[in-house]
Amino acid sequence: MINVLVWNENRHEKKDEKVRSVYPDGIHGAIAGFLKNEEYKVNTATLDEPEHGLTDVVLKETDVLIWWGHLAHGEVEDSIVEKVKQRVLEGMGLIVLHSGHFSKIFKALMGTSCDLKWREADEKERIWIVDPSHPIAAGLGEYIELEREEMYGEHFDIPAPDELVMVSWFEGGEVFRSGCTYKRGKGKVFYFRPGHETYPTYYQKDIQQVIKNAVQWAKPADLRTPVYGNAKPLEKISVKREGVEK
Amino acid sequence: MINVLVWNENRHEKKDEKVRSVYPDGIHGAIAGFLKNEEYKVNTATLDEPEHGLTDVVLKETDVLIWWGHLAHGEVEDSIVEKVKQRVLEGMGLIVLHSGHFSKIFKALMGTSCDLKWREADEKERIWIVDPSHPIAAGLGEYIELEREEMYGEHFDIPAPDELVMVSWFEGGEVFRSGCTYKRGKGKVFYFRPGHETYPTYYQKDIQQVIKNAVQWAKPADLRTPVYGNAKPLEKISVKREGVEK
Amino acid sequence: MINVLVWNENRHEKKDEKVRSVYPDGIHGAIAGFLKNEEYKVNTATLDEPEHGLTDVVLKETDVLIWWGHLAHGEVEDSIVEKVKQRVLEGMGLIVLHSGHFSKIFKALMGTSCDLKWREADEKERIWIVDPSHPIAAGLGEYIELEREEMYGEHFDIPAPDELVMVSWFEGGEVFRSGCTYKRGKGKVFYFRPGHETYPTYYQKDIQQVIKNAVQWAKPADLRTPVYGNAKPLEKISVKREGVEK
Amino acid sequence: MINVLVWNENRHEKKDEKVRSVYPDGIHGAIAGFLKNEEYKVNTATLDEPEHGLTDVVLKETDVLIWWGHLAHGEVEDSIVEKVKQRVLEGMGLIVLHSGHFSKIFKALMGTSCDLKWREADEKERIWIVDPSHPIAAGLGEYIELEREEMYGEHFDIPAPDELVMVSWFEGGEVFRSGCTYKRGKGKVFYFRPGHETYPTYYQKDIQQVIKNAVQWAKPADLRTPVYGNAKPLEKISVKREGVEK
Repeated sequence: MINVLVWNENRHEKKDEKVRSVYPDGIHGAIAGFLKNEEYKVNTATLDEPEHGLTDVVLKETDVLIWWGHLAHGEVEDSIVEKVKQRVLEGMGLIVLHSGHFSKIFKALMGTSCDLKWREADEKERIWIVDPSHPIAAGLGEYIELEREEMYGEHFDIPAPDELVMVSWFEGGEVFRSGCTYKRGKGKVFYFRPGHETYPTYYQKDIQQVIKNAVQWAKPADLRTPVYGNAKPLEKISVKREGVEK
Repeated sequence: MINVLVWNENRHEKKDEKVRSVYPDGIHGAIAGFLKNEEYKVNTATLDEPEHGLTDVVLKETDVLIWWGHLAHGEVEDSIVEKVKQRVLEGMGLIVLHSGHFSKIFKALMGTSCDLKWREADEKERIWIVDPSHPIAAGLGEYIELEREEMYGEHFDIPAPDELVMVSWFEGGEVFRSGCTYKRGKGKVFYFRPGHETYPTYYQKDIQQVIKNAVQWAKPADLRTPVYGNAKPLEKISVKREGVEK
Repeated sequence: MINVLVWNENRHEKKDEKVRSVYPDGIHGAIAGFLKNEEYKVNTATLDEPEHGLTDVVLKETDVLIWWGHLAHGEVEDSIVEKVKQRVLEGMGLIVLHSGHFSKIFKALMGTSCDLKWREADEKERIWIVDPSHPIAAGLGEYIELEREEMYGEHFDIPAPDELVMVSWFEGGEVFRSGCTYKRGKGKVFYFRPGHETYPTYYQKDIQQVIKNAVQWAKPADLRTPVYGNAKPLEKISVKREGVEK
Repeated sequence: MINVLVWNENRHEKKDEKVRSVYPDGIHGAIAGFLKNEEYKVNTATLDEPEHGLTDVVLKETDVLIWWGHLAHGEVEDSIVEKVKQRVLEGMGLIVLHSGHFSKIFKALMGTSCDLKWREADEKERIWIVDPSHPIAAGLGEYIELEREEMYGEHFDIPAPDELVMVSWFEGGEVFRSGCTYKRGKGKVFYFRPGHETYPTYYQKDIQQVIKNAVQWAKPADLRTPVYGNAKPLEKISVKREGVEK
C-alpha cells in the first residue's frame, strides 16, 4: 500500500470559470480520482488549508507527493518547503507536474532557476519516449499526443537529468525535455511537463499511465539510512605524526 | 586571462597556532600563491571583509571562484550566498574544496544535505583517478597519495555527479567520491575533497595540478545566454479551439 | 514469474580441487540454489553443453541471464555471443559477475577493453553502497564486508556507468567501481564485482541479496518495441525543393 | 597543432550527379576545407584507398578522426574497424556524422543497434541547444536551423549519452537526440546528426562551428595511460588463510 498525496495550489479552479469547467473537482481531484482506482491510498491537500495541508504527520505518512502549482508559488511558506525537502531527502518520492517547475520545492532540489520558454497557443504537443524500457514508460506507445497544450521550450534551466525519459515536440517549432528523473538524498524526483489548467490533459489515459508509473517508480526504497558524522576506523591506522610512524 | 578569486573563511588561521604554522598566509594565500605563477589574474577574499569580499563588482569580474570554509558556514550572509549562486547560474565556475561540502553555496546548488562521515586520525588517503582522460586529471599519475589527511567517507549525500573523476581510499577502511563535476545553470562546479587545515595538502604538486586543471575546466564558455519567458512561435500553428481546426 | 538463467563456464569446478570443494555444485549451482527459494523459475547452462546451453528457445524464454566466466572466454562462440547480445537489446536483463568483466558479451555491450588491475592475496574487500536508495541496494547495510577476496582495482576501463551503486575498498590500497548499471537497447545490464572461484562469496547472505535485487531490477519492462526505419510524416511538410516553397 | 583526419566513404559523390553538384570535392573535401582555415593539420581518407586510407601510421598520428559513411558500411574491413576502435580506446577523438550512426565503428563503440527512424522529405530541422555552456555549443545561438534535411527520429537506439548537447525538431513531427557525447576508453566520441549528402549542410557556418568545437573538445588529453593487469599491493595485507590471521 503506497500513500500518495496529491497537492494542488487550487487557485485557478476558484478564480477561472474555464478551468473550473475542465476540472470541477480541481486538478488534485482529477489526479486523485484516477489514482484511487489503483492500489494506492490517495489523499489531497491544497494551498489554502492550514500549513497548506502539509503537516508533519501528513508528510511523515506520505510515500509519494504529487505537486501542481502555478499562480501562487510565492505563497507557499518557506518553512513548509523546507519540511517537504527534508522528507524528499529522507526518501519520499516527489512528482512535479507542469508549472510546478517554478515551485519553491523543485527549485530548491534542483539548485537552478528552472526557467524555460512558454506560450499559450492551443498548439499540438507530441511527447516522444526516448528511454522505452524505463519503468515510467511501461505500457506506453512510442509517443503521447496532446491535441492542445501550452508550449514549454528549451533551454530548460535544470541540471542534466539522471535519466531523460521523454522529449516533447511542439507545433510551433520547439522541443522540451518533458520527462526527467533525479535523485536527491534518498528520494526520487520525477518532473513531467504536461498539464496546463485549461486543457483536459489529466483525463487522457496515457498521461494517467505515466503518473501511475511514476508513483510506482518514486516510492521509497527498503532503505537503512546511512550513518553520517564522526566515524571510528574500520581498519587499524598506523598513526604517523610529524612524519614518524608510531 | 582568467580572473580567479580564492575565497577562504580564514578563521582557523587566526585561532589555531598549528594551522597558522602550516598556512602562514592563510589557505587562500597558499592557493593564490601557486595559481599566480600561471596565466591567471588571482585575487583573494575572506569572510571578515565587508560583504565577505564578495561585492557585486568583484563577483561580476570573477570567472572562477574557489571556496574553502569550515567553522563559520553559518556566518556567510544568505544574501551573499544568493548572489554567488546567481553568478554560478550565469556561468561563473565554482571549485569547492574539502569542508566546503557543508557551505551554504554548495548545499544550495546541490539541493541535498551534503553530509558524510569524517574522522581526524592522521591517516593515509590515496585518491584514484577513475576518469583518466578527463581534463581535470591531465598530467596526473594513476593516483595521488596524501600521507596524512582527514577522512571523509561514504555515504556522501550529493546528487550523482555529472562526471566522477576521482575516488579516495582511506587507511581506516572507507572510500569517498573525491572529485565530482556538476553543471548548474551555465556554471561548472567541481568538488575536490582534500585539504584539511592542519596538513600541508595544498603545497603538494599533484594537488595543485588538480586545482589548476579545474580552473581551466570551470572557466565560462563562450556563451550566448538563452532567452526565457514568453516566446512567439517559430512555425505556423493551426489553432484548434474547441476542437475545431480554424 | 521471472525466468532466470544462470550461465557458468564451469571449468574451474572440473579442474581445481579447491574450487570444487567450495562450489561442489558449481558456481551456477550455488547461485541457482539461493535464487530458487524465491519467486523465480531458475535454470542453469554451462559452456560445454551444446550451443553452451544457450539455444534460441532458451534465450527467448529467458528474462534475466546471469553470467560467470573466467578461463575460457575465448571458447564462447561468437555467433552465440551475438545472439545473447540481440536478446539483451530486445530487453533481456543481464547480470555480469566478477571475472565476467572480460567476457565477450560484456565487452561487446560496453565497447571498451573492460581491463583492470587484479591480485590474488586473500585480502579484505569492503563494498560501500554509494547510492543507498537504488533498488539493487534494498535491504543492505552501509557496506558488505568480504574477509577474503581477489582484488580488482581502478582504472576499470568501462564507460561511465548510468548509475554507480557500489565502490569497493581493498586492504592492499585500491578502490573499484563494483556495482554498475547500464542500459543497452531495451535491456538492463548490471555488473557486480565479487565472486572469485576460490572463496565462498556466493554463500554470503548480503551478496545473495544484491543478486536477487539485481534480478528484480533487470527484468524486462512492459515494453512496446519502437518502430525503426522509414517513417511517414506525422505532420504536413511544406516541401521546399530548390529553395522554392511549393 | 591537432592532426585531424576526415574520413569519407565517398561513394555517393561518384555515383550521384546531384551529390557531386553539392559536394564537388566530396563531403570530406568540404569538411577538410573549412577546418584547414583553423589551427589544425587536416588530412582526408576514403573507403577505396588501400586499407581505406587508415594505415597504422596514419591512425597513430591522428588526434581526431571525423567519420562520414552511408552506402557501404559493410565494405569497411573488420580488421580496420578494430584498429580504429583501439585508437579511440587509446585516446583518439572520434566525431561521427549523420548516417555514420550505422557505421561498424560507431556500433562497436556503442554496443547497441544504433537504429532510428528516417525520412527524406526536404523538411525543416531545427537543432536546439539543450546544454548551452558545453564547449561544443560555444559561440552558437539558441538553435541551428536547416531549411531542408533528412529526418532522423526517435527512438534512437544508443546508450544514454554522457552529455546530451542538442535535440532536433523536425517539421514532420519527430524529435531526435542530435548532439551526443560519450567516452570510450581514453577517447572522446561525439555524434552529430546533420549532413545528408544531397543538402549543402556542411557549408552552413553554424554547422561548421559545431564541428570545429567538437574537434577541440575531442582532442586527446595529456594522459599517462593507466597500468592494467596483475598489481602488487600498495599497503600491507594481513593474510588470513583458512580464516586464521597470520
